[in-house]
Parts: sequence; structure tokens; C-alpha cells
Amino acid sequence: MSGIQSTWQYVDDHRDQMIADLQRLVQQKSISSSGEGVEECARLLASMMEEVGIRAEVMPTDGLPVVFGHIEADHPDAPTLLIYTHYDVQPADPEDAWESPPWEARVVGDRLIGRGTTDAKGNLMAHLKAVQALKATGGMPINIKFLFDGEEESGSPSLPGFVDSHRDLLMADAALSFDGGFDAGNIPRINLGSSGLLFVSLRAKGGEHDLHSARARLVPNPAWKLVWALNTMKDPDSNVLIEGFYDNVRPPTARERELLEQAGWDDDEQKRSLGTDEFVGGVSGTDALQQLLFTPTCNIAGFASGYVGEGRKTLLPSTATVNIDFRLVSDQDPDDILQKLRNHLDKHGYGDIEIETRGGVEPSRTNPDDPFVEVVVEAAKAVYQQDPTVRPTGDASGRQAVWLAGKFGIPGAGTAVGPPDWKGHAANEFMTIQHFLDGIKYAATIWSNWAERFGGRD
Amino acid sequence: MSGIQSTWQYVDDHRDQMIADLQRLVQQKSISSSGEGVEECARLLASMMEEVGIRAEVMPTDGLPVVFGHIEADHPDAPTLLIYTHYDVQPADPEDAWESPPWEARVVGDRLIGRGTTDAKGNLMAHLKAVQALKATGGMPINIKFLFDGEEESGSPSLPGFVDSHRDLLMADAALSFDGGFDAGNIPRINLGSSGLLFVSLRAKGGEHDLHSARARLVPNPAWKLVWALNTMKDPDSNVLIEGFYDNVRPPTARERELLEQAGWDDDEQKRSLGTDEFVGGVSGTDALQQLLFTPTCNIAGFASGYVGEGRKTLLPSTATVNIDFRLVSDQDPDDILQKLRNHLDKHGYGDIEIETRGGVEPSRTNPDDPFVEVVVEAAKAVYQQDPTVRPTGDASGRQAVWLAGKFGIPGAGTAVGPPDWKGHAANEFMTIQHFLDGIKYAATIWSNWAERFGGRD
Repeated sequence: MSGIQSTWQYVDDHRDQMIADLQRLVQQKSISSSGEGVEECARLLASMMEEVGIRAEVMPTDGLPVVFGHIEADHPDAPTLLIYTHYDVQPADPEDAWESPPWEARVVGDRLIGRGTTDAKGNLMAHLKAVQALKATGGMPINIKFLFDGEEESGSPSLPGFVDSHRDLLMADAALSFDGGFDAGNIPRINLGSSGLLFVSLRAKGGEHDLHSARARLVPNPAWKLVWALNTMKDPDSNVLIEGFYDNVRPPTARERELLEQAGWDDDEQKRSLGTDEFVGGVSGTDALQQLLFTPTCNIAGFASGYVGEGRKTLLPSTATVNIDFRLVSDQDPDDILQKLRNHLDKHGYGDIEIETRGGVEPSRTNPDDPFVEVVVEAAKAVYQQDPTVRPTGDASGRQAVWLAGKFGIPGAGTAVGPPDWKGHAANEFMTIQHFLDGIKYAATIWSNWAERFGGRD
Repeated sequence: MSGIQSTWQYVDDHRDQMIADLQRLVQQKSISSSGEGVEECARLLASMMEEVGIRAEVMPTDGLPVVFGHIEADHPDAPTLLIYTHYDVQPADPEDAWESPPWEARVVGDRLIGRGTTDAKGNLMAHLKAVQALKATGGMPINIKFLFDGEEESGSPSLPGFVDSHRDLLMADAALSFDGGFDAGNIPRINLGSSGLLFVSLRAKGGEHDLHSARARLVPNPAWKLVWALNTMKDPDSNVLIEGFYDNVRPPTARERELLEQAGWDDDEQKRSLGTDEFVGGVSGTDALQQLLFTPTCNIAGFASGYVGEGRKTLLPSTATVNIDFRLVSDQDPDDILQKLRNHLDKHGYGDIEIETRGGVEPSRTNPDDPFVEVVVEAAKAVYQQDPTVRPTGDASGRQAVWLAGKFGIPGAGTAVGPPDWKGHAANEFMTIQHFLDGIKYAATIWSNWAERFGGRD
């Protein structure tokens, strides 16, 4: 039996204890939106990490704590992997909508039902159990740093600050996250990037107070000012007109385009699911998927001025506000886009429009031909006996491994061990026993294969 | 003693009874926003009209009743005047803010304090007492039709329907309204026009439901659609770009411009009062007043889409709504402008933007050289011993005499007998005894002078 086969065998042999450990973690609430149980769960998690030989520490942030762990390879010259996932969960209300209690993680048939069984405690526990299995069957092949977030379900507000102030502690050769479940059809999925974001609120002012609209002939209307300013920012063909906006957009490589073509995009299905008859720009097929993943946008998320209720309120508003999110792609930088927006407004005579910035997220994208990516893909094939879906980047903005990879200039990937249709954020969230055990093997296989590949590369 | 002098003397001799009649009318509540006392006040008013010899009738409308009255001249071939004002009033809450009870019309010094003493029961009662005085001192010089509205403080929603279905009943040779008070400096005021209005709500639709904003790369954003559509409707220099929008705009005549120049417009004072540092288009002086009174506009009264509260809600809205009021000037027609707006949107590719119409008001403007206007001006000079301010038109849209005049194709004027700073719609609304008595004389003088002038013209 090869090294990895014996590790897999160990997992199967210890399945009951491994399931029990996942149940133990799920049973400790950790609801970041209310804070309920989060501190207790952080301490429990740290102790469970210590049980398998990981040096663990509950570390403060500006919000809820991070649990950081570190384990070293049993061989010298091994690479270091930064693993990100989260130990906080969504609320479980209403609890009577669950077929078994959400904080019990009861086994029902081939499933573990409970809040966090997949998102993300099952994904997280796969790592701890992989450490246990590898240490019992030949030793740790790589160094690992674990970054377990306590605020992911609340948008990870404290994570950027924590990462910026702990760069040396977190620095690694690659980054990996496990979160969520398989794609429909029970296909494993590997994401290599995420979109960035710049969120701003623009505000224009007119008179000191709202006026009777007859005075609109003399007093400037701030809603019109925003309309005219917005019109200079994006044309009806959806081209963003801010000077330099597209300068740092990196188009997809031939390999990335190939991955898009393999993704099985179905226009009709997507239109149905999105509730639209047409796509922006009239794109279709792989071009539509490419537009979704590889183009930045400037989106009006909200516009408010005056009154739009019933009746005939002839009002000249004194203020107008528009919220805009720019969805960014590699290698755009939110700070740079913000400066370009300010310059654009100033240049077009809208220097008096105020910009309130509500933060940004950097986009990131890992080269699909990077050896680390190949290791993850090969591990998925080995464990699941099928080709994973490799998405070159994601449409949403996140702060998981691919974002960390971008910050540290290292390759990164996000994958998942839960079942498809795992009912995330809803009642009856579940993990299957098979997906959990396979997930442990998947983690162990990635690490082992990477150690070989990394050693071979040196 | 000439005819009108004896009429004036009669007013002075009967002042106590005339004041008592105004008190009687004020004491009967008639709050149109709640309906409280309106029907009772209509009946009281009709009986008070009958007391002075006016045939009066409480007439139903789609809302609160109109009180219609008719009195004939004591001489043949006299002209007919249509008089508009209203018997409904604003609420008086909070009543403890009043220095004397709002529904008592108590005399305090030289004032009558109470809700409606000026707006408009004092203005209305001046007519009834003028009839009484004229009948006692030589007879009615003209025919008069009285149209007393019960919904003016609620925007007169039923008046257009009433007028359209009673054209023959209301038809006259001129129209006149008394409402409100003098201008600052105790200067009588005569308005010869009012603005029109077209109020629409435009709605654009995107996807079937709100989406995560990452999908804005594929699903059209209705807020952007409205921004682009609005931008085709008005340029940053405030020119309305709807084809044919200005076709029927009648510029001011030399005489109207002269009246503007006499109006004593003060840029600094107006900017302070309006709370603005700049006027649209950078106009100043008489040009600013002319822009306020003689140009139409397209005003965004409200814009709503998505979410603009705190935080970072990255939303792709499914709908966007903008409320627009077009302030119109003679001879624009609200129905015509609506059709031009629809054509404009269709032509620019926005056929899918829905227009909900919330009604229109026709603009109107009487020629300041019309003999009827000269009669009103001369009467003001005779009674008040000073030149009135003649405003060739008003910035707001109303449905008083000038609007009726426009509908019937006859000259019309709006004037007022109350004091300046009469605290309209606020606590401690008042009428002075002097303004009330002078108002009666003003009404009688207009009628007498017009009879002479009209006879002379024939």
C-alpha cells in the first residue's frame, strides 16, 4: 500500500471518531452575526487543533477572534501552505424548520444534519482529521499555517486589518481554502480567482433644503447633477468611461478561455435563473461567461433623491445619493480606481460631488498552469475519480484563499468538500458522511502530492 | 358723494356687522384634509349668500362640494364676472400654539385671529359684503357667478371635473380670484397667470428580482437605463431636449418684461431665501425672475432604486422609478407634452420605460393690457392709494381664476385682500380689520369700474 493509500485507509478505519469530532464542533454554536458562542467555539477549535498536534492560538482582531494554527512538516525543505476557512456560522432560525435539531449534528441516514456541517465546519474539520491521519501514517508532508476566520458570515470585516498586521506570520508558498460544496452533478470545483470591489456613495447637494419644484427653474437640482455625472461615467453600451479604468485589466489567457469553454454554460438556463430576457451587450455562450468573470463593471446599487411614493409631490430635492459598486478584475486596484473616479468627476466639472468610500477588495487570479493548481486538480481526480470543474475566477468578491494569494503574490485556490445542494444558510444544512471522509482524503492528498511536486521542482 | 364713495361709506358704517359675519363663517370649521365641518360650512355659506341676495346652491363634485352662487346686475347689458375662491381651510393643530382660539376669530387689537380669517374666508366674505353694500347704495353693477371651492387646500382634485361638466353654468366675460394677502411692504398684488404642470412617474425594469451585483455584468440595470434616458431628456445646461418641447412657449411681451423690471427682484435676497449660491444658468436680476416665470422645466422630484442606506449592499436592483414634474408655461399643453415625452423615449430606444401620468394643469396668462386688468389695477390704486405689483404670471401651478380664464378663453386675474405676513397655514393666522374693510371696497370698486368700462366699450 502506497503512502497515501494507507492514509486513506486510516480515515476509513477511524470514521466514527472523525464524525464525532465534527459533531462536537457543530454542537458549539458560533453565530458571528450575534456573536453567540463564537469565543467559546474559538477556544474549542484551538483545543481540537492541539489534540492532533497543531500549535494553535486564539488571536484577537478588531472584531471576533481568528484561530491561528501552525504545524511543521516531518521533513526539511517542505513547502508551506496557508489554509483559510472559517469556524463561524449563520443563525439557524427558525429552528422548528429543521428535521433534526440544528445544533446537534445528528446522523440521519448517510447525512449529518446541522448548522455549519458543510459551511464551513465540515470543510474545516477535514483539515484537522487529515493532519491526524497523515501523522499516524508517515508524518506531515508540508508545513501548514491555518487561518480560521470567525467573521466570514459577516463579511470578514476584521480580516484585512489582521492580515496586514500579520504578514510574516501568514506568509506561505501557496494558499488554499475549503468552503461550501460540490457543483451540481456532484462535481468537485476549484476556483482560481475572485473579483475585486470598490464601493462608493456619491452625494450631490442642491439648495439648503427641499423646495417647491416651481423653483427648479432657478435652484440646481442635485438629482439631475448625479444623472449627468453618472452619464459621463458609463455609456448606454455599458462601457465605463472613467479615464484609465480598463488600464490594468488582464484579459483571459488561452488556457483560461479553454476552462470557460469547458464550464458548460447554458444561456437559457442562466437567463431563467437570473430572471432576464437579455444579457448586457447581447453576449451569449462562453462570451457571456467570460463577460461575467473577466470584465469589471460600474453598478448603481441604489439611487435616492426626493420622493417617489404615491401622489403628486412636486418637490425640488436638496440632496441626491447614489451608491455604486465597481466589480473589479485582476489587476485593477480599488485605491487606484477610486483616484481615477475622483479625477474623472473633477475633470467633468463635478468637483462638488462628494465621494464616501465604503472600502474595497482586491481582485485576484492564479495562473491555471501553476504547479500548485495542477496538484489540487490531480488530487481531486485521484480522490473523486473524476475531473473537477476549474473556474479561472469567480464573479463575486471574497476574502478567502485566492484573495490571500493575491495579497502575498503566491498561487491560490479555493475548493470545497461538501455535497451539492447542501442547503447553505437555510434549514436542514447537511454534510454527507461520504463527502466528509472524502474531504479528509482530498486534503491529505493535496498536501502529499504538493510535497512531492515541490521537492521535485527544487 | 359719487356712487362708489357712498358704497365705501356704507362699508364703514356697517363694519361691526360685517366683521361679525366673517367671524360667523370662520367659526364654522371646514377642514378639507379631514373633511371636518366642510358640508356644514357649505350650507352656512350658501345661507349667508342668500342673506345678501345671491342665489346660492351647494353642488356635489367627486369630492367635497362646491358652493355656486349667481347674482344679476340691476342694469341690462352688464358683463358677467366669474369669481373663484375657497371656503375650506387648513387644520389648526396644535391649537395651543395660538394666542387666541383658532375657531373663534376673536378681535385682538386691530386683528381678527383665526384659521381662515385670511385664507380664504376673509377674502371670500369681502365679496358677500360688497354685494350687500352695492345693493344698498345703487344696485349691482355687473352679473356675478361665484365658484367657492371646498377642496383648495387639498389641491382641488375635483375642480377640473366640475368645471368641465359645468362650462355653460360658469361661462363669463372675465374671471377673478381673491385669496391670500398683500406682498411685503403692504403692497397689493395682482397675478395675471400661473404655470402649468405635467406630473409623470417613469419606471424601468431589469431582472425579475433584485440580484447580487456581480451579475450586473450580464443583467441590465434599470437605474442605469433611467439615467441614460433622463440624460437624453435634459442637458447639463438645463435645456430640455424633448423634441418640440418649447414649440408653444410664448415669450414675454415688452409689457410683461416691463412688469418684471418693476418687480424689485433682489438676487441676494432671493438666493438667501432659496438657500442657494447660484441660479441655474448663472442668470441674475430681471433675467432670473423671467426664467422663474416664463420658462418651463423638467424637474426630478424623486428617484428611487435599490438601497442607499448605510453599509455596503452590493445589489443589482430590479426596478427604478423617477418622478418628474414638468412646470409648463403658456401655451404649452400637458397632454401634448406627455405625447412628446412618449415619442422621445420611443425614439431613443426607451420604449420599455413605462410612463404613469399623475395629471396635468394647464398654464395660463392674461394680457396685461387687457381692459379687465386695467380695471383691477385702477381699483387697487383707488382703494389703497398706491400702485399694486402686477405679476404677469406665477411660478406655481394653480387652479384659481387665471386657470379658469385660460380654460374659458377670457381674461383673468388673481388678487388678495389680506395683510402681508398673515401667517398662512400656521398658528395665529390673522386678518386686520382695515384689510378686511378695504377688501370689501376693493371688490365693489372693481365691479363698478368694470361695468363702466365694459359699457363704454360696447
